[in-house]
Amino acid sequence: MNTFGNIYRLTTFGESHGTAIGGVVDGMPPGIVVDIDFIQGELNRRRPGQNPLTTGRQENDQVELLSGIFEGRTTGTPIGFIVRNEGQHSQDYEELRCLYRPSHADYTYQQKYGLRDHRGGGRASARVTISRIVAGALAKLTLRQLGITVQAYTSQVGTIALDHDYSRYDLSLTEQNNVRCPDEEKAAEMEALIRQVKAEGDTIGGTVTCVVKGCPAGLGEPEADKLHAALAHAMMSINAAKGFEYGDGFSGLALRGSEQNDLWTSEGTTQTNHSGGIQGGISNGQDIYFRVAFKPVPTLLKPQATVDIEGTPTVMKARGRHDPCVLPRAVPIVEAMTAMVVLDKILQNLPIKNFFLATNEKSLKK
Amino acid sequence: MNTFGNIYRLTTFGESHGTAIGGVVDGMPPGIVVDIDFIQGELNRRRPGQNPLTTGRQENDQVELLSGIFEGRTTGTPIGFIVRNEGQHSQDYEELRCLYRPSHADYTYQQKYGLRDHRGGGRASARVTISRIVAGALAKLTLRQLGITVQAYTSQVGTIALDHDYSRYDLSLTEQNNVRCPDEEKAAEMEALIRQVKAEGDTIGGTVTCVVKGCPAGLGEPEADKLHAALAHAMMSINAAKGFEYGDGFSGLALRGSEQNDLWTSEGTTQTNHSGGIQGGISNGQDIYFRVAFKPVPTLLKPQATVDIEGTPTVMKARGRHDPCVLPRAVPIVEAMTAMVVLDKILQNLPIKNFFLATNEKSLKK
Amino acid sequence: MNTFGNIYRLTTFGESHGTAIGGVVDGMPPGIVVDIDFIQGELNRRRPGQNPLTTGRQENDQVELLSGIFEGRTTGTPIGFIVRNEGQHSQDYEELRCLYRPSHADYTYQQKYGLRDHRGGGRASARVTISRIVAGALAKLTLRQLGITVQAYTSQVGTIALDHDYSRYDLSLTEQNNVRCPDEEKAAEMEALIRQVKAEGDTIGGTVTCVVKGCPAGLGEPEADKLHAALAHAMMSINAAKGFEYGDGFSGLALRGSEQNDLWTSEGTTQTNHSGGIQGGISNGQDIYFRVAFKPVPTLLKPQATVDIEGTPTVMKARGRHDPCVLPRAVPIVEAMTAMVVLDKILQNLPIKNFFLATNEKSLKK
Amino acid sequence: MNTFGNIYRLTTFGESHGTAIGGVVDGMPPGIVVDIDFIQGELNRRRPGQNPLTTGRQENDQVELLSGIFEGRTTGTPIGFIVRNEGQHSQDYEELRCLYRPSHADYTYQQKYGLRDHRGGGRASARVTISRIVAGALAKLTLRQLGITVQAYTSQVGTIALDHDYSRYDLSLTEQNNVRCPDEEKAAEMEALIRQVKAEGDTIGGTVTCVVKGCPAGLGEPEADKLHAALAHAMMSINAAKGFEYGDGFSGLALRGSEQNDLWTSEGTTQTNHSGGIQGGISNGQDIYFRVAFKPVPTLLKPQATVDIEGTPTVMKARGRHDPCVLPRAVPIVEAMTAMVVLDKILQNLPIKNFFLATNEKSLKK
Repeated sequence: MNTFGNIYRLTTFGESHGTAIGGVVDGMPPGIVVDIDFIQGELNRRRPGQNPLTTGRQENDQVELLSGIFEGRTTGTPIGFIVRNEGQHSQDYEELRCLYRPSHADYTYQQKYGLRDHRGGGRASARVTISRIVAGALAKLTLRQLGITVQAYTSQVGTIALDHDYSRYDLSLTEQNNVRCPDEEKAAEMEALIRQVKAEGDTIGGTVTCVVKGCPAGLGEPEADKLHAALAHAMMSINAAKGFEYGDGFSGLALRGSEQNDLWTSEGTTQTNHSGGIQGGISNGQDIYFRVAFKPVPTLLKPQATVDIEGTPTVMKARGRHDPCVLPRAVPIVEAMTAMVVLDKILQNLPIKNFFLATNEKSLKK
Repeated sequence: MNTFGNIYRLTTFGESHGTAIGGVVDGMPPGIVVDIDFIQGELNRRRPGQNPLTTGRQENDQVELLSGIFEGRTTGTPIGFIVRNEGQHSQDYEELRCLYRPSHADYTYQQKYGLRDHRGGGRASARVTISRIVAGALAKLTLRQLGITVQAYTSQVGTIALDHDYSRYDLSLTEQNNVRCPDEEKAAEMEALIRQVKAEGDTIGGTVTCVVKGCPAGLGEPEADKLHAALAHAMMSINAAKGFEYGDGFSGLALRGSEQNDLWTSEGTTQTNHSGGIQGGISNGQDIYFRVAFKPVPTLLKPQATVDIEGTPTVMKARGRHDPCVLPRAVPIVEAMTAMVVLDKILQNLPIKNFFLATNEKSLKK
Repeated sequence: MNTFGNIYRLTTFGESHGTAIGGVVDGMPPGIVVDIDFIQGELNRRRPGQNPLTTGRQENDQVELLSGIFEGRTTGTPIGFIVRNEGQHSQDYEELRCLYRPSHADYTYQQKYGLRDHRGGGRASARVTISRIVAGALAKLTLRQLGITVQAYTSQVGTIALDHDYSRYDLSLTEQNNVRCPDEEKAAEMEALIRQVKAEGDTIGGTVTCVVKGCPAGLGEPEADKLHAALAHAMMSINAAKGFEYGDGFSGLALRGSEQNDLWTSEGTTQTNHSGGIQGGISNGQDIYFRVAFKPVPTLLKPQATVDIEGTPTVMKARGRHDPCVLPRAVPIVEAMTAMVVLDKILQNLPIKNFFLATNEKSLKK
Repeated sequence: MNTFGNIYRLTTFGESHGTAIGGVVDGMPPGIVVDIDFIQGELNRRRPGQNPLTTGRQENDQVELLSGIFEGRTTGTPIGFIVRNEGQHSQDYEELRCLYRPSHADYTYQQKYGLRDHRGGGRASARVTISRIVAGALAKLTLRQLGITVQAYTSQVGTIALDHDYSRYDLSLTEQNNVRCPDEEKAAEMEALIRQVKAEGDTIGGTVTCVVKGCPAGLGEPEADKLHAALAHAMMSINAAKGFEYGDGFSGLALRGSEQNDLWTSEGTTQTNHSGGIQGGISNGQDIYFRVAFKPVPTLLKPQATVDIEGTPTVMKARGRHDPCVLPRAVPIVEAMTAMVVLDKILQNLPIKNFFLATNEKSLKK
């Protein structure tokens, strides 16, 4: 429904033009210092209007944390939070009452619920990802204590693509440009392409690659909730996501088994990492990496033929302010979802990991 | 953990060399006629030894349904079932006690649980997919009553690939050849490649495409359990799966938004189906289709360098009987998982769909 | 964790002296008219300071609904809501930093989380039931459309008890007095007792009885989530609840099977209702009724011996404003939890109920 | 549906006259030595025909464990198990095709599912508790390693009742008599009463009290899954259960708060235990105790008036072999459900308990 995760859980609410977007983080470990500036900073990375490549909408997206924190630390009880919707131009969407936009969720919501909030995409708006950024930031603060980092970057826009091998790039450069691509040259090409597409009133898709470093071995359930299945589920739940692959993924199909196997070293590491850090659904201690495809957003600033809700043909042209390419703003969302999944799996795994430790040390007893 | 689904749920158990593989199907709708021959037929499509392209292991895989059925119909109570393991050659795996096979789950299970059943891959064996075939067959029997069909086929082996557009193929031809590919010419090429790879003691991967026809609009949850996210999760939980895409997927990245949008017709259908039958995570009534990448299986019949559990370098060479390519046997598993997801989403959606119907007609009252 | 229900789900957050109490209702059926005055009215029934029998604290408890509503109707998407905490006197609780109050959750929270918000009981405060009132009110609005009513009343205070048979009382009189008891004479006795106990600086417990009328047959899961098990879980989750019984319950132990069996009539009803409207965990269409025991609240206005967190003996005496008896304010909470459970079970049951109806009528198809 | 628990989970299947009863235990900690004789011994405590007070049916109830065990230890993967149904006399129940037995689940199953397996009560038979005994025995083996014991006993039959205070009894005497009551004198009275009721073709109810010793503080979720709420849910899911109370429960209503509060000692224990070892839904390290009421079983060997499924009045008289009183056989079921809940809560709590420990010691990292 509207809940992500098993132990570390986020339940979200809100639509584009409602009163507020928000959620509840349950399962937050107690005692974590809450760095509110970091959380707001993550929201700012997602915010529209942050640079010329994104929509011109100006949204402040100030988060208010409502519970679960005492004297600057998490208490282990749920953290409720809201971000109020402000400056929504609902009248920009008035004609959508009677229209189903192509490749949008208007028709499907109407079919599912029998009614819909047509303003700004309602619950299907990418604005709802705000909640995930907040929960992801709290997860990142926790992972940081465990020495685990999550870094994503734009790896493809249209057909301009980076190499599959993330280790060739210095990921600390990702935030240096508007597209969030660690290769400056490719970043410039991508930016030029996005500007051109925008000028045409069109849109373009691409991919985000994400890398998790420092993740312990043993995370993931072997059958129904393999680590990569959980990651795929999380990534495909992001608006506009169309594909997921980890390790060699689709590009590995050209290789034989003998070329793709990751041979062990005497140190308990692998010589290569075609597996993407996961074997049999469980992390093996190597870097975890995967790639997510995002389609071109379907909202165009040039005219499109469609039908109204009576089936009468008409022509629509988006008003309002829209992104020509979601990739730069998708990067922090991919990171947030990844951090949530990894923390959830760590918390799921701790009972197994520590059961005998606890038993033997009798630390369980008091 | 070991449970798939929300309303239509499968909980599985069993390892390769234990006493039996089995599971419990919960949420089965009452009154469905149980066609045991159909269920066994689906198991036979997955069974090893069915043709020269698969492993030479001969396993009967006879299913025994233990509950939830009365006078030939489902009762709505859970269906327990088992398939006994027979003719396992546990001694073939004795050396794995002290070895971690490359790109297998040996090391990760050891890390997660502190001990492992090394025989035949234990719980990580593809043999555990038997349970999914049974639950998928029961789901198919239910979907059949609703006029919904699920058909998968091998769409790529190595670099030999079919066209992305499934509508170019006659899917009724899929079962006519050993690779389960509806294009006879490509099927012959694929078969030749698999034979060659097998002769080299090596393995090869590929993709399966799956198409769902007749699915009503309105299935899928808008936020955390989008229909394609649920499909991705299910597919990535299949052994050896490395990637998932639906609709245009990764290949759509070359297109602009104006090329990828599916314009509406006056009849409430779409002129194209780049969306893959899903918009905003909810089915729109068009065909649903997606593609899954499977890696080359890591078990090779030629020698590989590895280390034992003490870290000492050694060379291993698989004994036993293994598949050079999982694709042909993956086809029924993809179908089974798809049928389970679609039925689950139908059952999840019925309360919303029927709530006011029920209210108005007072049919709820008795 | 902090989520109630399966299909109709409430996730709560908030502590007594945090910024706000709130929650998310997921699974709300679409199209329900939201009567905000009704919801606020239910909150007012729970509010402290409503009459001389309750705590003197004045809290406004104004609810703000943040999402999931469009043009006055529910949309089927989650409803987030908050009630801000105002006028909390945190300094009244300063000494609790270093004390564990007898029979309170101070010590257990400290043991569980390693730290705690000592102010006003933190997350363990009865103030958190505000979220349940809101979700219960939304459930009641939905049940009303189905002709289902939920009515609770105070049936015992101390040893002053009503008859077990609810049908002897006119439940419409419940709100006529301060204790919410439909028997005016007993109500007066109960009120006198509460005033006396209050004057002594002491507290007293009692029971609430709840009756559901108009509930269709067929609700409840047969094994793990029997209807009465779900009700017991919900009731025992209310602060200060110590016992639950349905139908004859504990008092039926004096009867033989032949005296307790409910014989059928030719009209498909039962001659008696010892079963409490539930057989084998599933509703049978008769009135559902049950009783919940609440202990005397442990916060006393007279001195009690205890130890501080260092183990040093000390004497404590509550400051602040506290209820001498929770019963009157527990009545709306019992109703709210009951409404949530019944709606949840209706939504769980609709797929089974309507599956073949849907199939046969092809109404599922569009 | 048919799954109990969160981390330690039991999914059950089977009906009285189907092929087998069984289930899947998921979340079993790895490395536990599986004492199969102990598990079978627990089944024998539940088995019918064990002594003159129970039904004369002879059922062997031999359990077969099918997976999740390797070289005598649990592996952490799911444990599937079955107990075959043998010697069922289905013809004894033929007339139930057309009858709804009073206070049985015949009518409610028919209403819920539209069809039912009438033989021996089908899924509603107490025979399905076999699965819980197996899962409970595995939980007990695990708890034993942690020094936690679970002991239940018959505390009331009809109106013959033990004292509320369990500490007055030597629980090691429980298995010394047919009624499983630790007070020999009362046990003899209870046995006489059951024999008399049986001779009359009637039935009688009673209560089971259960005590958990050695349980660490900190177990239970503070809001939706309080420890006593989880226990209430588990107990009320047992066939014929009608009521639940913990600590002082209903009998505490005669006391004031000042009489019921458990004052702390300097040693971090409480002077009294009216709370039943749980405060705010979380264990406090003292003994946990609670009481469950069971109704007289509705199957009588003397004639009862009822109606057939057409509504025509008729008289029924049970054939077959039935218990006059479920209490003696309910004792091991109460213990099994309790052990499952306690282990589940321990596993849920370990991540919180060990998070910082793990962080600080870096034990999480490898």
